Formats: sequence, structure tokens, C-alpha cells
Amino acid sequence: MPKMKVEDYVRTIPDFPEPGIMFRDITTVLEDADGFQLAIDEMQKKLADVDFDIVCGAEARGFVFASALAYNMHKPLGLIRKKGKLPCDTLEQGYDLEYGKAVIEMHKDTIKPGMKAVIVDDLIATGGTVGAAAKLIEKLGGEVVCMVFLMELEGLKGREKLKGYDVRTVISYPGK
Amino acid sequence: MPKMKVEDYVRTIPDFPEPGIMFRDITTVLEDADGFQLAIDEMQKKLADVDFDIVCGAEARGFVFASALAYNMHKPLGLIRKKGKLPCDTLEQGYDLEYGKAVIEMHKDTIKPGMKAVIVDDLIATGGTVGAAAKLIEKLGGEVVCMVFLMELEGLKGREKLKGYDVRTVISYPGK
Repeated sequence: MPKMKVEDYVRTIPDFPEPGIMFRDITTVLEDADGFQLAIDEMQKKLADVDFDIVCGAEARGFVFASALAYNMHKPLGLIRKKGKLPCDTLEQGYDLEYGKAVIEMHKDTIKPGMKAVIVDDLIATGGTVGAAAKLIEKLGGEVVCMVFLMELEGLKGREKLKGYDVRTVISYPGK
Repeated sequence: MPKMKVEDYVRTIPDFPEPGIMFRDITTVLEDADGFQLAIDEMQKKLADVDFDIVCGAEARGFVFASALAYNMHKPLGLIRKKGKLPCDTLEQGYDLEYGKAVIEMHKDTIKPGMKAVIVDDLIATGGTVGAAAKLIEKLGGEVVCMVFLMELEGLKGREKLKGYDVRTVISYPGK
């Protein structure tokens, strides 16, 4: 029998990668046909009242959720990639990681001026990648009308970095 | 009006990354709602007569196609990732790149013995990644019953590396 909630499909790994951290592994959600459909359907419900033109997902796990949502909702899929992966003219945006820096890119013509974009990802952790993705979309003339995540780790306070955006999540865990 | 063939949505960049190469860019397929649905639907048709238990996709573009197909066909989605990205117990497989080597991994429990797996990717180029993915699935006790690609570059002879597998593609280009 299918389980009732997406949480039931998440695998929790205690004390990983370090003591005190409860690691939430979503691969077990994906690896169950019912779990995966439930996760996508719940994310889609979060977008039911949102008027938007494109679903954007960040490499790599964001692609998993953005793809099924874009297909189901008959919207374009915009890829946000790590630097150097896109073949045409790109705009880039740097952001800070816990240790070091990272750079993401989009094709300049993925976002047309005035486009309403939704950003989709598996997880709000610190909000770094998604915050950078939003800046990129805005620099290209788009508007980020909603951000949808499967999972939020409230202890990492990613929402604080995403203030001013309409952030919606299916699952919230209190810890890190 | 929607175009009729997936090819019509592919952007071709002549002489990229070097003179004589016609680079086939699929981001323009994804960025058109009709193009993306057509691409997924054509890939799904290739699987209509295949009996399988799981759809596996390789990071990162493979995730895009494997996700929508797994969702639509109500199958589990198995992630094949670059080394160091998966949190639980993994098996790894190395393979040669044009310059250097790469390593991919899967969670050991993604593939149960006897599982029939389909590998999905955007492109057969040299067949290196997909060949390594197939080895990984087989080492874990699974069987690779089909490989489905959106696009084949015949000049790169990837099919030769994938001999013995049931390789199916939506689009074939004669060049590299």
C-alpha cells in the first residue's frame, strides 16, 4: 500500500556527515514510484495558484524536480548550470559556499524580459544556490514569482536569505 | 503552432567547440513547452514495448529526461551520480574521458538483484558514461534491458561501445 506522506519515503541518516546532523536523503523518495509521484504532485499543488511562464531548476538535483513539473504543467524548462556547461552565450552569478565559492550560469536567452519564473529545488538548505539563481533570472529581466522546494531544513535558516520571495515547501524539518 | 519533430527544436551551433563540429544544443528543446513534451513523449514511445522496473539517469542532463519518464510511466527513478554526491553506501565505476578519467556512483540499494533497468540520457556521444552506468547496474545484480537517448551523434560511434545493449534513439545526426 502506498504511504500517505512524502516524509514517509525520506531516509534519515543520523549523525551524517557529522555528529548531531540528521541527514535527510531524498533518493529513497525517487526510488519508490508512488513516493516520487506523490512528491511531484505535492510540489505541483504548491503552484496551483501561481501564474508563471517557466520552471527553472539548478544542477543537478533541481533538474529532477523541475523536469517533471515543467512537463506536467506544460511549461518551458530552464536550466541553471554550473559554470562551463552551457554552449551558448551565458550570464554567470557567483555565491558563497560554506568553504569557498561557486558560480552558476544560464543561457542569456532562456529568460526573456518580463518572464515570470518559478525556481524549483529539492532542498532549501542555506539558500545560497537558489538566491544566486534568482539574481541571475532578475539580471536577465525576469521575475521570480515563486520558489518551490520539496524539503526545508529550518535550522539552516535559508528562508532568511530568500526574504522577499514567495517560498513554499512540502516538508519542513526543524533541524539542520 | 507547434513544430512537428523534435529536431525542429534543436539549436545547431556550427564550428563549436572547434571548426567542423556542428554542436547540437538541446536546451532550446527544453525551453519550449511543446518541444519538451514532444521529446519526452517520443522517448516514452521507445519504451512502449519494454518490460522494466526502474528508470536510471546519469548526472546531470540525464536527470532531466529520466525524471519526466519515470514520473509518467510510474516507475522508480535511480540516480547515477558523480563521485561523492550520494550519502549512503555506494558502488563506483570509472571510465575514460577524451582527456582523463571520471568516476560515477550509485547507491548499492538502488538496484535490487534481478531488477530490469532502463538507462536514459540526452545524448549518445562516445558512450563512455552510459557504458559505465550499465556496468554499475550489472555489478549490483540488475539487468540493463534498454537504453533510450534523445539524440545520437553517429560519427562518435557510441553504439560500438554499447554493443549487446538494446539502444534506441529519437534523433540521429550523421556527424560528430
